[in-house]
Amino acid sequence: MARAFAGAVNDWIAREWLDRDPALRASIVVPLQNPAFAVDEIERCAPDLRFVQVLVLAMGEMPLGRRAYWPVYAAAERHGLPIGIHAGSSYRHPVTSVGWPGTYAEDYASQAQGFQAQLTSLVTEGVFRQFPDLKVVLLESGVTWLPAFLWRLDKFWRGLRPEVPWVDRPPHEIVRDHVRLTIQPLDAPDDPGVVLRIVEHLRSDAMLLFATDYPHWQFDGDDVLPDGLPGDLIEKIAVVNPLETYPRLRETAP
Amino acid sequence: MARAFAGAVNDWIAREWLDRDPALRASIVVPLQNPAFAVDEIERCAPDLRFVQVLVLAMGEMPLGRRAYWPVYAAAERHGLPIGIHAGSSYRHPVTSVGWPGTYAEDYASQAQGFQAQLTSLVTEGVFRQFPDLKVVLLESGVTWLPAFLWRLDKFWRGLRPEVPWVDRPPHEIVRDHVRLTIQPLDAPDDPGVVLRIVEHLRSDAMLLFATDYPHWQFDGDDVLPDGLPGDLIEKIAVVNPLETYPRLRETAP
Repeated sequence: MARAFAGAVNDWIAREWLDRDPALRASIVVPLQNPAFAVDEIERCAPDLRFVQVLVLAMGEMPLGRRAYWPVYAAAERHGLPIGIHAGSSYRHPVTSVGWPGTYAEDYASQAQGFQAQLTSLVTEGVFRQFPDLKVVLLESGVTWLPAFLWRLDKFWRGLRPEVPWVDRPPHEIVRDHVRLTIQPLDAPDDPGVVLRIVEHLRSDAMLLFATDYPHWQFDGDDVLPDGLPGDLIEKIAVVNPLETYPRLRETAP
Repeated sequence: MARAFAGAVNDWIAREWLDRDPALRASIVVPLQNPAFAVDEIERCAPDLRFVQVLVLAMGEMPLGRRAYWPVYAAAERHGLPIGIHAGSSYRHPVTSVGWPGTYAEDYASQAQGFQAQLTSLVTEGVFRQFPDLKVVLLESGVTWLPAFLWRLDKFWRGLRPEVPWVDRPPHEIVRDHVRLTIQPLDAPDDPGVVLRIVEHLRSDAMLLFATDYPHWQFDGDDVLPDGLPGDLIEKIAVVNPLETYPRLRETAP
């Protein structure tokens, strides 16, 4: 059933949206429950260059680094399609690692953990060593947790690296080369200095991508970019980084 | 069985450790599976002032904010005992919110999520409003994730506060007043500036507590404090903050 749904959604988005506005691009929804079917769906949609990434949930049945999913990454890499990981759950596990939350506020705040767990899994299982051209984009993940997360992951990797010999360089380097994050909603305080400091901590201005989260407005209202960013950083976030991340955007530019 | 185990551990620690060295203090282990039994155990041990906190796991059966646990917090508050939340799981849920990890490195790096989920739960369920004198100490949680976590929690609280009207001020203020963290293992890079910046982000130098994690040495070796901290911050971390957090330390000072 997931296969039929995913195929129907992709056909619908192409016919009802992409065909009507040449400026639009879309993601390929895949039935990740069955990686072979997911690969079939990628192969079916990939010839249409208006599909620019493969979309999966932040919280599914297993951590995304597990070998069962590797054929999906092989297909995505082959077609120049980043894997977009979007907030959301298949609800096979509680949203937190300590059980079910009691309120929506708790659920929302806890969504970042799913993204953190997926990055940890993708890095420690060696996905990016196996697929050196694969890009992963975190969608609605928030951003400010990343530096501390990478410090921690680097530290535990240093202590336990004999267990994961295929992780042959510090996790922060792997993430910097392969992972991109969208800036909506932005989990930073109003102080614009914090965003600049995050970019400095990441030692990279290539990781952030413009996003609006349209039509959601409940967190950042109409402010699509934080105040006070320098013009060259805005240029990176809004133009340079997206074109680097999504090669199909450049190929199909009108 | 948990009740018998917890009682036996507490008796053993008093007899074999506290009785032998007047410098030592201990935590009360409780059978949290049954909050009424946990309260009984607190009442039984609390008259011995060498017990200075109540110890629970970072990852149990339910988020710690849930109402079922409130009698435990009432007992702890009554006796001036902080709740110490220590890394570890009862393994009723996977260590990550996306399923079971494949490696120990992944497990270790993911432990911070349990602490994040517990803080979210304690704040959003209103525990600190109900128990204004309650302190919570995170043990082996890491530290550097806290500022970004609080920015996120503040933000989602602002968006969703009608759902949790009992959270009547920003989460970062609640956490600053009620929560303390130990500094081992420290999930910061070697740059000492980062620790100072974290303290600045927290807008508080009262939250960090000295710890050695003895006999574990696999992450920080013999370095019990990060290099380059100013003397007054060390004084706060090693002396002032612990005495503030654990009133029984002061009462029972030899």
